[in-house]
This record gives sequence, structure tokens and C-alpha cells, in this order.
Amino acid sequence: MTDVALFGAGRIGTIHAGNIVRQPDVVLKYVVDVDPAAASALSRRHGARTADVDAVFDDASVAAVVIASSTDTHAELILRAAKAHKAIFCEKPVDLALDRARACAEAVRSSGVACVIGFQRRYDPTFASLKSRIAGGEIGDPEMLVVTSRDPGAPPVDYIKRSGGIFKDMLIHDFDIFRWIMDDEGATVYATGSCLTDPAIEAAGDIDATAVTIRSRRGRLAQINTIRRAAYGYDQRFEVIGSKGLLQAGNHRPTEVVLWSSGAITADKPEHFFLERYRAAYAAEMAHFFDVVAGRARARTSIDDGVMALELAEAATTSWREKRIVTI
Amino acid sequence: MTDVALFGAGRIGTIHAGNIVRQPDVVLKYVVDVDPAAASALSRRHGARTADVDAVFDDASVAAVVIASSTDTHAELILRAAKAHKAIFCEKPVDLALDRARACAEAVRSSGVACVIGFQRRYDPTFASLKSRIAGGEIGDPEMLVVTSRDPGAPPVDYIKRSGGIFKDMLIHDFDIFRWIMDDEGATVYATGSCLTDPAIEAAGDIDATAVTIRSRRGRLAQINTIRRAAYGYDQRFEVIGSKGLLQAGNHRPTEVVLWSSGAITADKPEHFFLERYRAAYAAEMAHFFDVVAGRARARTSIDDGVMALELAEAATTSWREKRIVTI
Amino acid sequence: MTDVALFGAGRIGTIHAGNIVRQPDVVLKYVVDVDPAAASALSRRHGARTADVDAVFDDASVAAVVIASSTDTHAELILRAAKAHKAIFCEKPVDLALDRARACAEAVRSSGVACVIGFQRRYDPTFASLKSRIAGGEIGDPEMLVVTSRDPGAPPVDYIKRSGGIFKDMLIHDFDIFRWIMDDEGATVYATGSCLTDPAIEAAGDIDATAVTIRSRRGRLAQINTIRRAAYGYDQRFEVIGSKGLLQAGNHRPTEVVLWSSGAITADKPEHFFLERYRAAYAAEMAHFFDVVAGRARARTSIDDGVMALELAEAATTSWREKRIVTI
Amino acid sequence: MTDVALFGAGRIGTIHAGNIVRQPDVVLKYVVDVDPAAASALSRRHGARTADVDAVFDDASVAAVVIASSTDTHAELILRAAKAHKAIFCEKPVDLALDRARACAEAVRSSGVACVIGFQRRYDPTFASLKSRIAGGEIGDPEMLVVTSRDPGAPPVDYIKRSGGIFKDMLIHDFDIFRWIMDDEGATVYATGSCLTDPAIEAAGDIDATAVTIRSRRGRLAQINTIRRAAYGYDQRFEVIGSKGLLQAGNHRPTEVVLWSSGAITADKPEHFFLERYRAAYAAEMAHFFDVVAGRARARTSIDDGVMALELAEAATTSWREKRIVTI
Repeated sequence: MTDVALFGAGRIGTIHAGNIVRQPDVVLKYVVDVDPAAASALSRRHGARTADVDAVFDDASVAAVVIASSTDTHAELILRAAKAHKAIFCEKPVDLALDRARACAEAVRSSGVACVIGFQRRYDPTFASLKSRIAGGEIGDPEMLVVTSRDPGAPPVDYIKRSGGIFKDMLIHDFDIFRWIMDDEGATVYATGSCLTDPAIEAAGDIDATAVTIRSRRGRLAQINTIRRAAYGYDQRFEVIGSKGLLQAGNHRPTEVVLWSSGAITADKPEHFFLERYRAAYAAEMAHFFDVVAGRARARTSIDDGVMALELAEAATTSWREKRIVTI
Repeated sequence: MTDVALFGAGRIGTIHAGNIVRQPDVVLKYVVDVDPAAASALSRRHGARTADVDAVFDDASVAAVVIASSTDTHAELILRAAKAHKAIFCEKPVDLALDRARACAEAVRSSGVACVIGFQRRYDPTFASLKSRIAGGEIGDPEMLVVTSRDPGAPPVDYIKRSGGIFKDMLIHDFDIFRWIMDDEGATVYATGSCLTDPAIEAAGDIDATAVTIRSRRGRLAQINTIRRAAYGYDQRFEVIGSKGLLQAGNHRPTEVVLWSSGAITADKPEHFFLERYRAAYAAEMAHFFDVVAGRARARTSIDDGVMALELAEAATTSWREKRIVTI
Repeated sequence: MTDVALFGAGRIGTIHAGNIVRQPDVVLKYVVDVDPAAASALSRRHGARTADVDAVFDDASVAAVVIASSTDTHAELILRAAKAHKAIFCEKPVDLALDRARACAEAVRSSGVACVIGFQRRYDPTFASLKSRIAGGEIGDPEMLVVTSRDPGAPPVDYIKRSGGIFKDMLIHDFDIFRWIMDDEGATVYATGSCLTDPAIEAAGDIDATAVTIRSRRGRLAQINTIRRAAYGYDQRFEVIGSKGLLQAGNHRPTEVVLWSSGAITADKPEHFFLERYRAAYAAEMAHFFDVVAGRARARTSIDDGVMALELAEAATTSWREKRIVTI
Repeated sequence: MTDVALFGAGRIGTIHAGNIVRQPDVVLKYVVDVDPAAASALSRRHGARTADVDAVFDDASVAAVVIASSTDTHAELILRAAKAHKAIFCEKPVDLALDRARACAEAVRSSGVACVIGFQRRYDPTFASLKSRIAGGEIGDPEMLVVTSRDPGAPPVDYIKRSGGIFKDMLIHDFDIFRWIMDDEGATVYATGSCLTDPAIEAAGDIDATAVTIRSRRGRLAQINTIRRAAYGYDQRFEVIGSKGLLQAGNHRPTEVVLWSSGAITADKPEHFFLERYRAAYAAEMAHFFDVVAGRARARTSIDDGVMALELAEAATTSWREKRIVTI
């Protein structure tokens, strides 16, 4: 049996808890949260206990930690887990500061612990199928990538202030998609953006709409368009053109009902938000984590992936702020 | 040059006139209509003359006639044209009475004139492509056919009274689709129906919704569902399942615009009605007619096709009226 | 806590077991199967015990039974469960013989036990959404129903021989869809069919392709087309036309990947078969069953629904065998 | 009657000739081409005459000219037509050199002749419907535009050498789409590109894949992705996100046939290339031109539009060549 501690009993921590307890031979032992009521409620639901951070790291029986607490706690928890030789699953981003993220990666590397970063999109059935079809040669060599990444609404401005900005908070996933799908690294990044939906976001020093272009080392091109408030909901599509064809990843819809009315033909909007859209992906990434812990698999989303997506986010932030093309 | 006379200056006659004058080496010489104003307006638009029926048949220079006048005039015009050795294009149905339709077919046969019946759907790009893909073996042997055939609204009750009923007026096209797509003939027909949209249609002795099943000689199955008033518009789809797969023919839409709004994702309704939906088909069938007249092709929709679709319509009418399965 | 016994450790029993153990406050106590190895393996996976039928009915702590054993065992198990006052979930069909099914319904009624029949399609997210949108008035009064119900391949002929024939085995679901969606009962049934895919099916006295028409008491029309072997897979669609519009229920696909190649644009085939297609429906129906057991809901698919779907199946079988329209 | 002269009897001139002769009260009098055989064949087909340039401008009866000859002839023909007070339809681009294009615009302005530039996409039924729905407020204020513009194959390298490069030759249409759809002007342009498909294009000083970002004066964002060789064909889509929703313009397909095979569900590729895709648009723009000539409409695609699209193309070329963000 593998005993696990979960840091964070919020929205995403709750999802992870449900997936942890479904793994064979895995026991959710502790739930840790700064809000004792949240920790208590979630631990009770799954027959776990609440604990503080020290108690977790002092308990030698805990073999793995799942870090779903706020971003500013990630680095310290990773460093402690690496030191305590506990396997690590950590939500993105590793940290908002690139040097701290790199220090975490170094600590993971030298300690040799297993570490999986929560880029859940790579585990989504649609995205994973597309990737494996590229690997199977269906479209030849990937040449261009177009990513559409739109949220149904902006988070509270207080969250935005602490988020590291739209590129580290929201596009970090899209930068990871770029690296994964194109199997290439960024050479130059150009980012521009606007604040179109809420002046409070601008006052907080951030933007809510971006257009990013990445030119890869091999001369491949990627465009990412993002908006924090798409009136129609959550929109997560991308398409890759290769020498032999195009592969598109479309949205998922709650149902396959179509209405033909006197005005038009109407289908469901996409799944409401990331919790619904990536339900299967969250389950698959947690199963993968415990495969890694058990030595049955190598981490598909490593801490180095976390660092390199952050590098792109940092480059994009600089490009936007300084109105220039950034060479990586 | 081929001189042509057009009978009927109504909605469909107007379409045919426009397509006649686009044929190379074809001249629209006469337009004939019981309404002199309609004949006059249409002939003027295309540089033709008005005439009465006798004048057309007395003019030896007229090599071909296009019959788009009311159904009750078809048989006589076909008989006279056959006698006068003029090539014939005639709108469906040949006649409402099977024996008169057969007499027309016999006259055409014995005179040897070219004759094309206006089953325009066979010339539609989508339907014709589907048919040729069956012929190319894409789905193996066709086994079942499901036809959806719905109008956006019922014609005036006065028209319905003279129409021969829904099976001869509206489903005649679907019966032809069955014969053409399945390359088979009906063995038994079962039809039931209801009057769901307008009691005046029931008072006129007709129905506005039908469900028809045809079992073919080779044991293949076809279902046709029809309604005269589909609130969402004109709906013309069919699908054929064969031993190796399924081919579907979908509706055409005016534009490829899609709206993603806060409520749903909406696309255009199908093309408004038959004049819009089958615009390309009407052009192609007229081009085909003049290919037949010029000896460059054999009639793809012969008067025998007209007779046999009528046989199915008659059988369906009997099945519905007498509440029994009709063997052909 | 509710203790439950599961009869049947086959394909569908395994699905139910997984859903039973996910219900809060429900314990899977026994797994019963004629194959001791199957019972043993499934009970072990979920921490249950194996038992024989008598042991289950002798154990007063068992409050509910889930019957997923072969069809010929359903009636006896229902009768015993009703007598023992245990709540009943039973797979369709209740029985192949209408009188025995009616006797079961009578026993359930007089004993007053909760009873849910496994018409899982009513719990499918797409179908349930469509039904609730009809109830919400989106298409006005439902007038016609077209059901497409195709399997990816026929079951073994040995199974077909004991199945009661295609109408009781396969279309029983579609008959239930008709009653549920149209909120109406059949008045006449016409069924025809062919054996198109395997002569062994014909030799077994059955068919593999059917076309069924039901006319409802209120004069509404339904058509069902079925084939046991659709080369492209499992196809479960229906559409309802009402006075104000049309609602379609489409297939679900494994992924939303689309390939644009030099030949065509290609999307995924539908989900492979019923276990995949109705995964969410099976989970929802089992949750519903325990809501019924706990008194939180009334049975949405009652044993009367089971009997009435069987009546339609019987009428269709007669219509096909005797080549006549059957009045119910 | 309006007498018209057509310059250019190539692919696009042939399309225009067919549309000119369909206009009421319009006569195609002359066809001019450097290749006498081409001019002769096209003029014969439409009952026109061949002529040289001087003859056209010397003929006072010619009220309008349609310029579809090679790009390097546009400016001179526009200047002569303006001077001769003949209405002008001219294919894009006005000229490869911005100062010459501006001189043409000035000549048109001072002479007061009608002038329509052949940005045919604005007349496409799908694109025009989308634009009018924006104008109708369906998506509120347009905020971001994503344009996908891909050709099925590159033109001959000899053509590319004279084409002014990919931005003036191919993206000129997309720059016009940006201005038209966003109803805004570019403030900054960033363009990058690669030569991915044919080294001969690189040797000719051009590229075959581009990613362009335009930031508008009002802070709106547009991304354009282009490739000269899309293995799957001609791909012309765009989508506009506004404050209330998203409007997408999709590709048109030759037929609505869908195949469900054992491997996948497949639909037609998009229309083959621009002649097929924009057939309706070419007809509509020519009808519009003669509405302008007759004073029934104002030019929807003016020579100023031609100049401003060229400014964007020039800025993009500079951005790509000099690897910098260009401010307009």
C-alpha cells in the first residue's frame, strides 16, 4: 500500500482526492489545508486525517505527496518532499520565479524522487489521441500549431494580482502544449495583449486577451490566442498542420443533442470549465502518477517540462511588457 | 441550333427557362402558359415568343419541349410531343392515373423520342456523388435505406385537392430515390399516416405526415418519413447502409457561419425550399436533357422511372387507405 | 447501510458491481453466479462474498438485489425478491413470455417492493437531456420519431437462439424509447425484416435487419430501423419532430480529434459498443435505483415499463412472422 | 447598355467574362490579352472582339473596364482608365509598390470615376453573412480575429519571383479581411515565417508559411496563419470573438455526403481552390460593380481599401525581413 498526503483541499485538491482514493493499493492518509474546515471536510469524506505540513514530512510511512495548494507554497513543498524522499505530484506552475523553479528541478534531480507536474491536458483523451496520431505519422512532420485557449470568465482580481500574470497563470498550459505537440523548443517569442473586459484587471497590471507567436528552433511556427472571458464558455482547441495533413482537437460537449428550430440548428456549448472538460484527464494523470511511483512508468510531465513552460511564460511576459521580440 | 418550347411559366417553369437559355446551341423559342401575362413576362425576359399549344406542335422547327405546366396537362402534351417527334422533358409526375402514365410511356417508346422526367434529385451534386460512391463499392451491397423528406409548410388546400395526395405529390421523389439508390424494385409497401398540422388537409382527404416501409424484391428494406410542415424548414436527407458502411446525404446550408453564443452553438438552417436546395440539380438536369436530345447521353430519368415511382405511390396510397400491406 | 446481492457476474454484472460499490452507504454483500470462478473473482475485487440463491434470500440483512443474470432466471428471482421484500433492480427484458412478465409485475405491485428495470438509455446524459427539453416545450407536441439502432456485430448464434428474437432482445430498448419519448402507447405495429448478414441467424429462426412502424393511440408515428451488423460500429441515434422543431440525439465519440488529409476530413467512429456508449447511463441508473430504495425517488423505469415494451416486442414479432399489421 | 472591356483572358479573366455577360444591360465589347489566342478564344465565346489597349481607351463607347491582367499592368491601366473617365474594376493588388498604388488612388479620386477592387471574399455568402451579423450586434464589439488561410499548393517559382512575396500576393486578402471585419486599422504588425515546403521558394527570396499578428488602433488583436501547401487542400476560415460571442466562417464543401466506414466517419474536403470556393463571390462582386457603375451602390471595396491592405502587406514584409515589430 502507498500512503499519500494531499496538500490543498480546494477545487482542484478535491478532484485529486477523488482520484487518489480510486487507485488500487493507494491510501489517502492526510489532507493538509490552511483552512482547517476544508481539510476536515475533505479528509472525512475519504476516511483520511487532517495534519499539518511538518506532521506529513515527519511520517516516514507517507510515500507520496500531491501538491494542490496555492502556487506560493509549491516550491517549499517540493524541496521538502525531495529532501524527505517522497514522490511528488505538483500542480502547475512549479513557481512564479524561474530561478526557484529551477532550484526545485535541481533538488528533484539530485534526490532522485519521482515527480509529475499537473499538465493535465497531456492526459486528455482527445489531446493524447491527437499526439499519438502525430507520432504515428498521420500528418508527417508538424509545421504549424494554432492554439485557441479561452476561459468563460476571469478569476477574481485578488487572485489575478497573485497569479504571476496571464502568461504564467493561463498560458502556461498552452506553452506546454506547444512543446509537447511540436516536440521542439521555442527560439523566439512575441506576445501582445490588451485588457478588453475589465479595467480592474488592467489596474492590477495584467491583461485579459493575448496573441502570442512562438518560432521554434527548427523554424516551426505557433500561434496562441487567449481571452479570459469568452461569452460562450470554455474553449480549448488546437490544430497542427503537418506536411501530410491537419489534426484538430475540438471541444467536448456535455451532450450530443441538436435542436433544429425555426431560427437555426443549435448544439450544446462546450463543457462548462476545466473541472468538467478535463475530468477524464485528471483521473488519468493521477493514475499515471501512481504508475510512476510504482516504477511502472516514467513521468510524462516532468519538472523539467514545468521549468521550460515557465521559461516561455517569462519570455512572453517580457515581450508583452517591453514590446519586443524575445530570443530564448 | 435546337429550338425549344416551354410549357408553364410558373415557379418551376421560370427556373427551367433560365437553364434552357444557358445551354450552348439551344434557343428558347416559345413560352406557353394559360396565364398570358406570365407567358409574356417570361418570354420577354429571354427573348422568346408566346404561343398557344397548337402553334408549338405545328412548328416543325421546334425540336424539343419542356413541360412544366400543371400535372393534369402532362399526359396530353407528352402524347402530342411523341406524335410530333419532339424530344420531351416533363416534370414529375407523368400523370396522377397510372394507366394514363403507362399510355404515355408506350407512346414515347413507340415513337422513339427522347424523354427525360424531372426527378431533379438524381442530378443533385450531393445525391449524385453518393450514388456514384455506392457504384464504386464504398459500402458494398446496399441493404437499408432511411429517407427523411420534410417540407417547410403545406401548399394551399386547393392545390392539395388536385395533387393526387401526399404520396403522388410529395413522396413520388422519395420513391424514385428508393429505386435509384437501392437499384431494386418494391415488392411490398406499407404506409400509414396522420393529419397533424391542419384539419383542412384532412377535410380534403389527405394527410400531412407519413411513415412508409418498402420491402424490395431482394429483401432490402427502406423507410421513408415525411411531414408537410417541419417548423425548422426543408429537410432532405437520406442514408444507405451497406455491407461495408453507411453513406449519408445531408442538407445544404445557405452559409457556413456558426455562432457560439452564451446559450448554444448555432448553425444555419437548411436551404429554404426546393428552388434553393436543388438549384444546381435543376441546372444539371436541363444540361442532361440537351445532351440526350443531342444524342450524347441516354436519359438518366426515363419515363419508365416516372411510371414505376407512380406505381409505388399508388401502392402506398392503397396501403394507407385500406390499412393493409400491399404487394406490388 | 444497504446490503446488496448481485446476481450475475458477467459483462453487465461487472459494470453494475463497479457502480454499486460507488454508492454512498451501500455495501455489495454477495455475488451469485452459476460460474463459481466468475462469482469469486468479482466478489473478491469488491470485498464481497459468493453465495447461492437461497443464501441470499435467507439473509434478512439483504435489502436489495440487482439481477443481471441470464434472462431465463429473471422472473423467478423477481418473484422470490418480491416475496422476500427485497428491492429489485432487474435487467431487461423482464421475461421472454409476456404472461410471466405480467405475473412478475403483479407480484411487485402486491408486495410493494421498489423495482427498477434496466432501461439504461433513459439515464444517458444525451437522451435524458433531450427528453427534458421536450418536457420543457422546446419542440411543442412530439409528432414523429425516427430511431436508428444498429449493433456493430451479431451475438453468437447460440445466444440468438435463446434470445427471444431480435424484437425482444435488441429492439426492446427502442420500444421503450418510443413510449418514453412520445409519452404515448402503441396502437398498431408493423414490422418487416430480413436476414442479410449471416444465414446461420436465419437458420436459428431469427433476422438481423428490421424496419418497424408504430402508430400511437394519438395518431403519432414512429419508425425504427435496426441492423445487427453495422460495419462502422454501434449506432444509436433518434430524432423527434414536434410542432415547433426537431430534437436529435447523436452518437458519442471517443475523442474529438478530426483529421484533414489529402483524401477527406475524418472524425472518430461512435463509441465501440453499449458498455462504452452507456457507461455514464449505467452509473446514473444504479444511483437512481438506490435513490428509489432510499425513498428519495420514484422508479423512472418501472416493471410496468418492462411489460409494455415487451408487449410491443411481441406485437412486432407477430407482425413480422404473420406478415400483417398488428393491433395492440 | 454599358459597353465593357476586359483586360486579361487568363483564369480569373475567364471567370469575370462569364459574370459580365450575365449582367442585364451590359455588353462585353472587347477582350484584351498579351496572348492573342487567349483573347481570341475568350472573346469568341462571348461574342466580343479582341482589341489592343489603345483601341479600348480610344473607344468612347466603352464605359467600364475590368482589369484582370498581370499585376504589373494594373497601375497603368487604372491611370489610363481614370484619365479616360471609364469605370474601373481591378483585381488585387492595385500595385506591388505602395507609392504607385497611392498614385492610382489619387487619380481615381480626382477623376471621380467609379472604382471597385477585387477583394472577392467580401462578397462571399458566408463571409458577407458573418459581417452583417456582426453589424447586427450578435457578438457585441469584435475583440479578436483569428484567420486561417491556406493554399493547396504553391504557384510556380517564376510566379512567386514576380509576386511581391507571400504578404502582397497571398495575405493581401487576409489583411483586407482584418480591416473589414474588425472595422479598425492596424497600429503594429509582427510577422514571422519559414520556408517549409520547397527550398526553391526560399532561393526566390520568399517563404511559404507565415504567422502574422496585428494590433489595431483600438487595441484589438488579430492573428493570421498561412501556408502555401496544405496537404488537405484549400482552407479559408476565420473566427471573430466579440464581447457577446463568437462567429466562425467555415469552409464550403463540394457535397454533403458523409461516409461511415469501419475506420472512421469521413466528409468531403473543402472546395478545391479559389475558383470553386469563391464562385458565388465572383458573381456577386461583378454584379456589385455594375450596380456601382449604374449609380445604384457605392463601392464596397474601394481603391483606398486596396491601398490600405497593401500598407499592411508592406509592414508585414518589413517585419519579417527585419525581424522587428513595425508600427504603421
